[in-house]
Amino acid sequence: MDGSFPLPLFGGDAPLYHQLYRHIAAAIQSGALAPGSKLPSKRRLCALAGVSMSTVETAYSLLAAEGYVLAKPRSGYVCADLLPPAPAAPSQRLPETVPAPPPRWAYDCSTSGVDTSAFPFSSWARITKEAVYENPGLLQRGHPQGDLSLRTALAELLAQYRGVRCAPEQVVVGAGADYLITLLLQLLPEQRSIALEDPGYPAAYTAAALHGREAVPIPVDGEGMDPEALAASGAGLAYLTPSHQFPLGVTMPAGRRSRLLHWAASAPGRWLIEDDYDSEFRYSSRPIPALQGLDRAGRVVYMGTFSRSIAPAIRVAYMILPPELLERFRRTFSHGACTVSRFEQESLRRFLVQGLYGRHLRRTGNLYRKKCALFTGALSAIPCAAISGADAGLHFMVTIPRLSEAELVERAAAKSVGVQPLSRYCHRVKPKPSTVVLGFAGLTEDELAQAAALLKEAWT
Amino acid sequence: MDGSFPLPLFGGDAPLYHQLYRHIAAAIQSGALAPGSKLPSKRRLCALAGVSMSTVETAYSLLAAEGYVLAKPRSGYVCADLLPPAPAAPSQRLPETVPAPPPRWAYDCSTSGVDTSAFPFSSWARITKEAVYENPGLLQRGHPQGDLSLRTALAELLAQYRGVRCAPEQVVVGAGADYLITLLLQLLPEQRSIALEDPGYPAAYTAAALHGREAVPIPVDGEGMDPEALAASGAGLAYLTPSHQFPLGVTMPAGRRSRLLHWAASAPGRWLIEDDYDSEFRYSSRPIPALQGLDRAGRVVYMGTFSRSIAPAIRVAYMILPPELLERFRRTFSHGACTVSRFEQESLRRFLVQGLYGRHLRRTGNLYRKKCALFTGALSAIPCAAISGADAGLHFMVTIPRLSEAELVERAAAKSVGVQPLSRYCHRVKPKPSTVVLGFAGLTEDELAQAAALLKEAWT
Repeated sequence: MDGSFPLPLFGGDAPLYHQLYRHIAAAIQSGALAPGSKLPSKRRLCALAGVSMSTVETAYSLLAAEGYVLAKPRSGYVCADLLPPAPAAPSQRLPETVPAPPPRWAYDCSTSGVDTSAFPFSSWARITKEAVYENPGLLQRGHPQGDLSLRTALAELLAQYRGVRCAPEQVVVGAGADYLITLLLQLLPEQRSIALEDPGYPAAYTAAALHGREAVPIPVDGEGMDPEALAASGAGLAYLTPSHQFPLGVTMPAGRRSRLLHWAASAPGRWLIEDDYDSEFRYSSRPIPALQGLDRAGRVVYMGTFSRSIAPAIRVAYMILPPELLERFRRTFSHGACTVSRFEQESLRRFLVQGLYGRHLRRTGNLYRKKCALFTGALSAIPCAAISGADAGLHFMVTIPRLSEAELVERAAAKSVGVQPLSRYCHRVKPKPSTVVLGFAGLTEDELAQAAALLKEAWT
Repeated sequence: MDGSFPLPLFGGDAPLYHQLYRHIAAAIQSGALAPGSKLPSKRRLCALAGVSMSTVETAYSLLAAEGYVLAKPRSGYVCADLLPPAPAAPSQRLPETVPAPPPRWAYDCSTSGVDTSAFPFSSWARITKEAVYENPGLLQRGHPQGDLSLRTALAELLAQYRGVRCAPEQVVVGAGADYLITLLLQLLPEQRSIALEDPGYPAAYTAAALHGREAVPIPVDGEGMDPEALAASGAGLAYLTPSHQFPLGVTMPAGRRSRLLHWAASAPGRWLIEDDYDSEFRYSSRPIPALQGLDRAGRVVYMGTFSRSIAPAIRVAYMILPPELLERFRRTFSHGACTVSRFEQESLRRFLVQGLYGRHLRRTGNLYRKKCALFTGALSAIPCAAISGADAGLHFMVTIPRLSEAELVERAAAKSVGVQPLSRYCHRVKPKPSTVVLGFAGLTEDELAQAAALLKEAWT
């Protein structure tokens, strides 16, 4: 066997023992060294390969550890009987980078943009550094709901800004609102369907599909989700955006809130998920307190996120569980880990309690108020244009009865302005005709002025 | 009506308009102001309440905005017809803090502890601060799979340390391994069952239950998951820990790897999830390359995390999707957001590419090697004690045939040392008798010496 023993051509940077090991392993894998055949003795291989004893010993022990060879007492090493490699799939080329498509529009009035120009970089950097330095204990595994100190700060913030009534024990922190919806659906396996606003937030429809739940579209009227249609649907779980309905921009009045709370309280196993989307930015009046604060029956799950009020990069969202669901959470996830880094939790806590978040909200609120006024003002000058849903949040709707929805979108695109057709968010309901949805947060004031001028040309 | 109109007792810190608004809203909600009844005129209320016109105007406009009152042309404001509040649930007291239970043992040999004493605080703090300062672009929404720069660094790291062969395009970054398993199960809705190691990692069983999949326990022998039992189970999806099986500590040899790859390649719709748990720490030989690197058919999903190799607080895990699943991911999650903060992604990238991770692994690897040798050495002195699974990772098993499993656990607990019974991780298989699982990473060397002395007393 010595004559035919495959020796490596040593070369390259890898240690000799590793080259030797790799070479012999490959020979066994390919069948060049047959199952059951003996390897040369260590001494013999030293001589054959011209390497030291320790090189050979290390290579042989690796081969034995990985199961390529078996050590037989008094007869040395014998090649193992490996299956030949499984056949390669025909098209297993590594996927190539899909280059980011070039921007489709010069002015993208997307509803997902935010203005990050006011982000307090130096404060955040300082806070982040302090959070690491001053808290070595944060390296250990934290509470599955998030650290109590952050949950306490959140409960206080939500009580003050949103009228939410909760104990810090009810707060669950997680890496984004979509993730929290996943957790919630895992807590509610008996809910096989979920009522969603129609038109509504596309990610909620996606989440329902990903969890194998039936999405039941419920029409939204001028006050929000229709309670009669909800009651008729048979669903036990409903997802709502009462502060600033997406995409219609409707704010749900007190009477409608009360009706939905009645629906939830009037039979067991009914739940409302209140996504308090965009509640931070309200231009024409004070923010309306959350549905959760009015709920005396413990049927509302309140949900919010910092992705819009701070930045999309900050993956921190939170939900407030009513007592019954909190019990379930504690039973189901007591061994889980919170999905947000504890350093990031501590940075956010400092941002909140040092008053930096309040200041940031005021600054960005003023920015958005100005942008919204500028953009809606300029668009109002278009003949017959009606603007709605602009009292709050970072988007609104424009209706121009003279043009079809498709014409509005296409003419805007021809001027390189991206706007979304309302029908994109509609499921069973017929969209309000001639209407498009525009976000303004991601564009600068100059860009908004330019986009408005282009839209005026496009739509006049 | 004026005489009976409920006026607030002004007081406290809230602005007058807000006290007035809140007072009237409560009266409408409770029915004290009947539906349809008229509010006093603004001028009249100024006089009644002794406040300014602007205070009254603000309060009325808030009431109108929230739907408590309706503005009727020429007749002022009329109370809306609200439903009375839904009945309160009998037991809706806010949950109280469940105080953390006092530690059950003086020495907790849990398998989830890690040693954070070697964590490079000052480097991490510096890197974190730089990541914020130098990357304002990171505030915007990033790639759903995680930033390409981090994925490139991960692909290089995994190629070098673990023999993983992948393009950065195949890497998906997410907030923890449990979260990535969630994503993966969402990508594989057709897999109604999942084969799991028995004994095995409890979180994998929990994940299966949470996603409504049947957990199929497959016995683990001295080489890892039994391929014949897997083939016979009918499952199309199997979850494995080949580097250091949890909890047996078995390292899967080359022949078994090859058999499992054959199983996966020999029929469509079969997948192996390789959780490369504990692969970073190997004491008796070089780490064995990952299963993924041998997979030519594209049937292995490779998974890893930094929670043990850096710290549990760092919520960053990653998986490598084979091309077919990458296509599915791109179709399903193209609009989703990565669950890890982009600042944290950038901090980790810097930690990797600046060589700090490699240095940290060497330091903690030496620490763990020393701890493992110390603890196993001391425990070997116990008569008839056999130690297994201590070649790698942060836990091992001790078998003492003279005592039952329950006796081992109880006698250790009586000395205030926490050890886990092997049966805790077993489903259908009968556990190896008289065996307990011990982790050593979370205790200091002194604590390990003391725990070993106590265990010797307990088990002799």
